[in-house]
Formats: sequence, C-alpha cells, structure tokens
Amino acid sequence: MTEHARPAVPALDEILGRPLPVLDQGFVRVVDYMGDDGAVVQAARVSYGAGTKSVSDDRGLIRYLLRHRHTTPFEMCELKLHVRVPMDAWRQWIRHRTASVNETSTRYSIAIDAAQRTPPDAWRRQATSNRQGSEGACDAELGARLSQAEAELQDHAREVYRQRLDLGVAREQARKDLPLSTYTEAYWKLDLHNLLHFLALRMDAHAQQEIRAYATVIGEQVVARWVPLVWEAFADFRLRARALSRLEWELLARLGRGDAAAARALAEAAGWLARSARTGGLARHRERAEFEAKARELGFTLPWD
Amino acid sequence: MTEHARPAVPALDEILGRPLPVLDQGFVRVVDYMGDDGAVVQAARVSYGAGTKSVSDDRGLIRYLLRHRHTTPFEMCELKLHVRVPMDAWRQWIRHRTASVNETSTRYSIAIDAAQRTPPDAWRRQATSNRQGSEGACDAELGARLSQAEAELQDHAREVYRQRLDLGVAREQARKDLPLSTYTEAYWKLDLHNLLHFLALRMDAHAQQEIRAYATVIGEQVVARWVPLVWEAFADFRLRARALSRLEWELLARLGRGDAAAARALAEAAGWLARSARTGGLARHRERAEFEAKARELGFTLPWD
Amino acid sequence: MTEHARPAVPALDEILGRPLPVLDQGFVRVVDYMGDDGAVVQAARVSYGAGTKSVSDDRGLIRYLLRHRHTTPFEMCELKLHVRVPMDAWRQWIRHRTASVNETSTRYSIAIDAAQRTPPDAWRRQATSNRQGSEGACDAELGARLSQAEAELQDHAREVYRQRLDLGVAREQARKDLPLSTYTEAYWKLDLHNLLHFLALRMDAHAQQEIRAYATVIGEQVVARWVPLVWEAFADFRLRARALSRLEWELLARLGRGDAAAARALAEAAGWLARSARTGGLARHRERAEFEAKARELGFTLPWD
Amino acid sequence: MTEHARPAVPALDEILGRPLPVLDQGFVRVVDYMGDDGAVVQAARVSYGAGTKSVSDDRGLIRYLLRHRHTTPFEMCELKLHVRVPMDAWRQWIRHRTASVNETSTRYSIAIDAAQRTPPDAWRRQATSNRQGSEGACDAELGARLSQAEAELQDHAREVYRQRLDLGVAREQARKDLPLSTYTEAYWKLDLHNLLHFLALRMDAHAQQEIRAYATVIGEQVVARWVPLVWEAFADFRLRARALSRLEWELLARLGRGDAAAARALAEAAGWLARSARTGGLARHRERAEFEAKARELGFTLPWD
Repeated sequence: MTEHARPAVPALDEILGRPLPVLDQGFVRVVDYMGDDGAVVQAARVSYGAGTKSVSDDRGLIRYLLRHRHTTPFEMCELKLHVRVPMDAWRQWIRHRTASVNETSTRYSIAIDAAQRTPPDAWRRQATSNRQGSEGACDAELGARLSQAEAELQDHAREVYRQRLDLGVAREQARKDLPLSTYTEAYWKLDLHNLLHFLALRMDAHAQQEIRAYATVIGEQVVARWVPLVWEAFADFRLRARALSRLEWELLARLGRGDAAAARALAEAAGWLARSARTGGLARHRERAEFEAKARELGFTLPWD
Repeated sequence: MTEHARPAVPALDEILGRPLPVLDQGFVRVVDYMGDDGAVVQAARVSYGAGTKSVSDDRGLIRYLLRHRHTTPFEMCELKLHVRVPMDAWRQWIRHRTASVNETSTRYSIAIDAAQRTPPDAWRRQATSNRQGSEGACDAELGARLSQAEAELQDHAREVYRQRLDLGVAREQARKDLPLSTYTEAYWKLDLHNLLHFLALRMDAHAQQEIRAYATVIGEQVVARWVPLVWEAFADFRLRARALSRLEWELLARLGRGDAAAARALAEAAGWLARSARTGGLARHRERAEFEAKARELGFTLPWD
Repeated sequence: MTEHARPAVPALDEILGRPLPVLDQGFVRVVDYMGDDGAVVQAARVSYGAGTKSVSDDRGLIRYLLRHRHTTPFEMCELKLHVRVPMDAWRQWIRHRTASVNETSTRYSIAIDAAQRTPPDAWRRQATSNRQGSEGACDAELGARLSQAEAELQDHAREVYRQRLDLGVAREQARKDLPLSTYTEAYWKLDLHNLLHFLALRMDAHAQQEIRAYATVIGEQVVARWVPLVWEAFADFRLRARALSRLEWELLARLGRGDAAAARALAEAAGWLARSARTGGLARHRERAEFEAKARELGFTLPWD
Repeated sequence: MTEHARPAVPALDEILGRPLPVLDQGFVRVVDYMGDDGAVVQAARVSYGAGTKSVSDDRGLIRYLLRHRHTTPFEMCELKLHVRVPMDAWRQWIRHRTASVNETSTRYSIAIDAAQRTPPDAWRRQATSNRQGSEGACDAELGARLSQAEAELQDHAREVYRQRLDLGVAREQARKDLPLSTYTEAYWKLDLHNLLHFLALRMDAHAQQEIRAYATVIGEQVVARWVPLVWEAFADFRLRARALSRLEWELLARLGRGDAAAARALAEAAGWLARSARTGGLARHRERAEFEAKARELGFTLPWD
C-alpha cells in the first residue's frame, strides 16, 4: 500500500515540534503539515488533465502555475504552526483572515509572563521619507534611556496586573492594561496559497521589522524545507518579481527602441511632466518617481532629465 | 522523536486511497488528512488553558466543545478527498464555499465518458406536501419507460459531443450540451468544522437523495473512522439534536406543569389559533404545526385540540 | 423609476452617521447599508421560486428561513459601521473573519489619546463557578484603589509613548507598550448573516461585558431599526432558542409520558448516574447537570433526585 | 443631514434594474450597490490617517492603493447583481468563493425554458497551440450542421424533461439530464476587491469567450459607471499591467545597458539555452519563450538569436 501512504517530507519532519526562536522570547514551531511539492502537481494534473504531461516535469509545472497565478493547486497543502508572538505583531498577523486560529485566552488563563524588550541598540528612528516606516537607529546613549524606561513601564504594568489578580479581580478585566508587547501564543493553520500571500506581504521590505522576523523564519526555515520547488518559484515570481503598469510598459518600449521623443510625449500626455509653480522644475509626481527608479535600474536615460 | 511525529489514524490509513463507491459510477476516496481527535483537544487546551484539565477526559472535552458551539478547535483537522460525482450533485456540493477544490477541466480534457443512470425502480414522485422533495417511487412499468428515455437522451448527447470533437470544435464549446448527469471529478479539501457543517446539511432528510448518498459515505465511512469521538458527539448534538424557539420552550414549560390554559393563552397571543373563515377550524399555521409535531413526540396533549 | 430605486430604511437613515455611545469613550456609528427586510425576501423568492408565495407573507417567510437555517438570503444585506473600541475588545471582535475591516494604523498615525477607564464600582470579581467569567463587583474602597492604580499606569504608559515620539522613535515601535485599554477605530463591514452570527455569540451572557455592550448597541439600536422582521425572528429562534441533544430529547419524551423508570434507565445507560467514590452521591457530570437545569425549567421532577 | 446620506452614484442609478443583454438570452442587472470611489478613499484615510492628505487627491490615492496592492479599502464597496447565465458558464463563475449567491433552485421550480444556442458562424475550433483554448471559426457549412444538431439535442432534452414532469417525476430528479447550456438565474453579491479579482481573471484573453462576455459587460458597463476612478486605475495597473520575474528583470537590465554577453550568461546559467538533441537548435523552453515575447515587445534583440 506504499502508493497510498500520506506524503511525508523528511526535511520538515526533522524540525517538527522544535521551537525556532524569533525576537527575544518568541518562537515558531511546526506542529503538523499536509502535502508536499508533489501534492501541488497532483492537484494541477487533476484539473488540467493528461495534457500537463507535456510540461516536462514537476518543477516546470510548479513554476508555470505560480507564474500564471493558478492558485488552487497550492491550496492542497496545509501547515499548522504553534507561535509565540508579541500582541502588537499578532494584531497585524491576525488581519490575514484565511487562517484557522486557536489563541491562548487570557480570560481563562493568566497572561504569559513575558513582554518583548528592546535592546539599547535596537530603537529605530521615524522615517522622514515614508510615514509608516523607520530608518536608522537611535544613538547608544538615547537607546539606553529608552530601554530603561521600557523596562520600568513593563514592570509597572505587570505589577498592576498581579495585584488585580491577587485582589480577586476577574482575569478578563485584570488584563485590560497589559502592554501590547506582552507575548501571546496560538495555533495557526492555513493552506500554502494563503501562506505564500502572507509571506509576500510580511517578508516585504515595507512590513514592520518584528512581523518580518516571523515571516522570514517561516519562509526560509519552514516553507523552504517543506516545499522546496514551490519556494524557489515563489522567490522568482513573487518575492523578487516586478510589476509594470500599462504606461510604464509603453514607456519602456519607446526607450528600448531609442525613441526618447515618443516616450516623453507619452509621459507628457499622462500629466507626468507638469511644472512646479514654485521651483519651475518638474513637480513631484509619485507615479513618475516610481517609474524613474525602475527605468534607471534597467540602465535607461530618462528623456525628461 | 515519537512525541513530535504527525498524528496518524490507523483506522483511516486502512482505507487511504481506496475508492468507496457511491451511486452507479461515483466514488469518494481519502487522499490525505491532518490531525485526529487529539488535535481538537490539543487546540482547545491552548485556547482555554490548563483549566480544561478539569474536564475529565478528551471525550468529555470534545462533547463540551460541540455542545456549546466552540468551532475553532475543529478547524485544526483537515481532510482531502478525491470524488467522482454527477455534475448535478456537484452543483449543490460546490455551494459550500469553505473548501479548496481542484476539479477536472473539460476545457483541457475530454469529459468523463459516464453519466449517472437511473434504474427503473428508482424514479421518485414529486412530493405533494413539500415543494422541493420527492416521495414514493414510480411504478415499475413507468420506471422502465423513463429509464429507456433517459438512456436514449444520454446516448444522443454523447453522440453529439463526440461528433463535435471529431469535427474539430473546441473542447470548451463542445461540452456545452452535456447532460447534468455527466460525472465530474475533483479534489476536495476542507477542515473538520466546515465538513461537519456540510454533513449536517447534506445528511439531512431534506437533502436530495443523490448528494445525501455522498454525505452519508463521507460521514459514516470516513469521519467515523478518522475522529470517532467527534463523530459520536456530532451525532448526539447536531445530527439528532432538536431546536426549540423561545415560544416553544415557554409552551412546553406550561404543558410540563400541566397548565393547559396558560399554554393556550400564549399560543393565542402569538396568533397561532386564528380560525379559518372557510372551515371554521384552526387556520393552517406552519410554526404551530411544527410545534404540534414536537409536543406530540414528547407525549403532551395539545390544549387546542 | 420607483421600482428600481435602492431600498432605503427611513428608521435607520435617521441615525446614519450619528455616534451611538458605548463604554466611556467608545461608539458605534452607521456609515452605510445595503438592503432591508424586503431584500431577504426577494433573494429567497429567487432561490425557492414562485412556490414561496404560499408562505403567506414576508414575516412568515423570514421566520421560516431563520428557523430552518437558510442562511444565504441574509447575506444579501450589508452593513458598514465605524466603531471606536478598546484594543482589548477589538482583539476578540477581529476574530470574526467574515467582515471587511479598515483599522486606524498606529504605524501611520499617532495612537488615539484615550484609554478605557474603569469607574470604582465597575471592577468585577473572578467567577468561581466558571473559569472564564466574572461575578459580582469589588467593594467600594477596593474599587477606588484599583481605579487609582489604573489611572497611574495609563498615565505612565502615555508618558512613555509621548517621550518616545518626542525623541524621534518610529511610531511603529513607540506604540509597543501601549496598554490594551487604548482605543482604536475601524470601519467594519459585513453581511447580515454573519452579523447575526456575531451578535448571537457576543450578546450571549458568556461574552465579556465590554464586547457585549457593543453587540447590544448594534443589535438593539441598529439591526432592530434596519431589519425589524429579521430582528424579531432572530430573537425568537436564535437568541432565546434552546437546543436539546438526542439524549435530552429522549429523556423528555419519557418524562412527558410520566415514565420515570424509562428515563432513569436511559440516563443510567449513558453513564450519567455514576456514584462518587468519596461522597456516595451522584458524581459530578456536566451533561447531566445541563439537562437537569432544563428539565427543572420545564417543570419536571428528575427521576434520580 | 446631507453629510450623512448614503453615497449615491447617479450614473449607476440610471441603469439600476435594467437588464444588460449578454449572449443570446442572458443578462446582467444591477439590483443594488453600496459605496462609490469616495468610500474607498474614506476607508483608506481611516487606515492611513491624516498623512494621506499629502496624496494630492482622490484619484492619486486610489491609484496608489491599487498599484501597491492595498486591498481592504476596495472591500468597502459592495455590488449586487441579478444575472441569467448558461449553467456551463455558471459552473466557472461559482468557483469564485468570495461572493454571496442565491440561485434559482430547480428542486423548487421548473427549470428556465431556455438554453444557449450557437449561431452557425460562432462555432470555434480547438486551438492547437494551447490545450484549453479555441482559435478561429468553423466554416459556414459545418457551422450550419453543428447548429442543427445542437437544436435537435436541446429539443430532445427539453422534451424528456417535460415528459418526466408530466408523468409526476420529482422536479429534483427530472432535471438530471438537462444540458449544461440551460440558463439559470442568480443574485450575486460581492465587494469591489473581489469583483476586480473576478474581472482580472474573467476578462483575460485566456478566459472562455462566454464568461468573458459577462465579465466585460460587468466591467465596462457597470464598474466603469459605478467607480470610474477605480476602474481607470484597475485598467492601468491590473488589466493591462505586466509582471516580470526576478530573472526577466535582471536580463532586461543587462539588455538595457547593451551588455548582451552578460544577459546571455544569465540565461545560460538558468538552463534556458539547452540544445535540442534532435534539431541542434535551442530546445523548447516555456519560460524563455515568454521572456522572448516580452523582450521583443520592448524592442530588444535577443542575444541568443
């Protein structure tokens, strides 16, 4: 009956149940999984029939599926993790609605006695270019003060929590002023398609560093072991792929043919070349700026420079 | 590393990959699964913490969860089936949106050369009491005529399909007049919570006989082997449970105490005892009729009889 | 064009955009809605066809649909709310995965400068009968101490937050130790079927008081105005309905007929009447205890008392 | 109270309730909607806060959101359609699981007496380049024969259906051999984000012509009226956008700088330039072929030609 055994992935079995550390006290732990690279291929062959045999091999088929956004075969694999995460990061995590979740309830149990602490050299400065991001680190002396204040606040909050419990306050109410840095735990289960979507968003450079740390461990230490062909294709066609708008594509086609005048005319027509009344130079324009970065990366000279 | 092996269910492993026949040419086949009764308990204990240890055992906890509609622990188990189903039943099946599906595409492949055929003794008569149901069988001679006409139509339809393909018509268009009785195949994967919901609706006496046949095989031959404690609790608290409305409950409480007058007054106030202008008797009233059936089953005499 | 205008509900239009206060600084505000009682009926008539005309009127049809768990017609109505909620309650709220959500981001913006404060007389004691609940209030003097400590902690947390921002720490990191009592805001949009499911769970006596306060406002002040026939049916068949297990139903049928011995035998067979080794009386048994409460409410004498 | 009225879109109100014809007997009809372009902006501003005011205007913000795959603000708009579609196309349509659906039940009602008929000049030939597609039309004489055979089959099927009903067979069973070309009707309701996803897949050149006809009407006649700014951005950044894989991007960067040797080396390393043992030329390679088409469109000479 070998042919009817459940698919198993020895490389993933090796780390089954073992906590992979993230942040100061967090972890990710594989509890169970269903399927492997072959399960994606098997589902695709049911859908698309014998014809897919012309796709030479599993790797080619998986790459084809991912490139052309065929998503349902990737839903045929499932992963179950046990995670320990600060509530602050969990608030972002839980926004992905396509997973099954069982989180520790602090109505039933005492909250985990751990909050995420920031080392003096890990305080990040508000980005000026970007409202939601951070850039650079605070200097050492300032970092030390911030970490000291953080410790005092977390100790104070824990002290209040303990007192409330000691005085008989209901757990569901006692917890109300715990800091967002408090760790929580959950079982988190979802299919590979939705997991890849999570990873594409949360491994991205714009994701907050804390949740990015979790996503990176899940991607590089779990998914890469579990479904190596899918992981490779995902890196090529999602994580490190580029999207070009209709206009960007048309501009590149002009630049590729060396027709700077036509490119310039297209940009003009799109309103990209309006002048700033104040400076007389080109006015700020987000779409144009995004295109300029791409065009420069490809080695083109911009016809409006 | 025994403690970190994936949970396995020997009773289900026994039938893994084996087609369980349904209807004349259909089947259900277990391809893979994740979790077992213990996985439900494990997830519940993460959520509700050490406190659940006071629930004496796994069976008690599972029954408690199902009885009180705690659904998330049941999402921690996952099942993947391969099914062969007439498109007519599949149209009902696919309305359950919480599953992952890879269905054979008749754009890519030739349609399965099989349509569900009805034996002469299996033609059902339209129910008169109930607009959507059937009741009783057609007589033998009529059944034979119907089966004969069915065979002719299915043969005709297949002949037209084959001709179109032979004449070079695109598969995606050639299929357009296949009968709904044509079989299709699919991989179908979903979690245990959503599977139980599917079974509750499709094993019900009001479900159409064909899909009920599939649901019954999945329930009795698959789920019962896979998660026997969940299956037992599901039968007790869902499949064979009863719901009583606020008013029904209040009426029973009066009848239980022998206070027929109070019960009658409640029913009167709810407008249940209006008279038919035509007959002078009680007018038809669906909610009252449903209550009467329940009350009689419990052995009560109705105070308005 | 009257027949093709969008359905409107004047009773709901009256409060459109107006904040309905909840807790000390929270609110619920109707931003938009789609459909009304008639839209549920309209969808049901498409599904079930002309036959439903035999159901005398809209009220009867809506009651029938809700009683028999036909859910899709209720998905045809949609509600969009703007809410202000403590993060602690929001953590529970967001577990309902079937809604669309846009929450204020504290990566982009400064966190709302408001935390939920507990008046001295509103501190609840841990329930002893029930691990997750609360019962009774703390005494006045203790309440005053708890409120004082709460205010100090919240002020301390806000002070640390402000300092971090002043010192140039990134917003996404500065917020990490805000208390769970901090208010957040969100747009929350979902269909009526899923909203009723939310209300059934969160208006329940076992739901935490804070989120119950929101659910009650949404139910009684919004849904009751918006779709009064659905709301009435929901109260009768969901909020105040009772479920009986297979065994409970069989026991009641014995008791209803006065056959105490048969009822006792059934309970015995189910293992409900095991004796405690310690006390010699009936051992604790959750399912039996739940049944006893129901049977007493109906006026029956238990055959094992 | 003008500021708290529900948003309305006069251009869409104009066609509210009016059937927009599709195929021979199908239609799409707007029943209701919630939100407009402004509702997307409103939700985004709640999420991202005052900072988004720096995005100059609504159009810029909507384009930014769509370009950077911010999806939740688009979930804040909702559309409800009434559609009449052949069951064959409906089988594809219903695979989109994120919509609410109430479909006419042929258990309750007699099936719609209409099947989609193909005019003699509309029979498509099986594509040879592509297993799932069609290309070119059958010639006139063949088309006439095919249409004739189609009419006979559909008439035969309808005759059998009618006879079964006349003979008292249950509707749920009588329908079992109706052709897939039979029309069905449904209410279909979903949010704008999921609608755009549907349109991106079903307006695509690879979608089957029949469902593409529906998607095109929904896109061009409904969405374009309803949310014109979203529609414009969707066309630029989704419908007519291009994706480039990591390797494709790196190759273009070499070609853009005129470094053909480096581009060739990259392709070589990726295994794209393997030789066919049979012909001695480059072996077939799907990914390379897809890149070649893109590079030529941009005006580049391939370094391996």
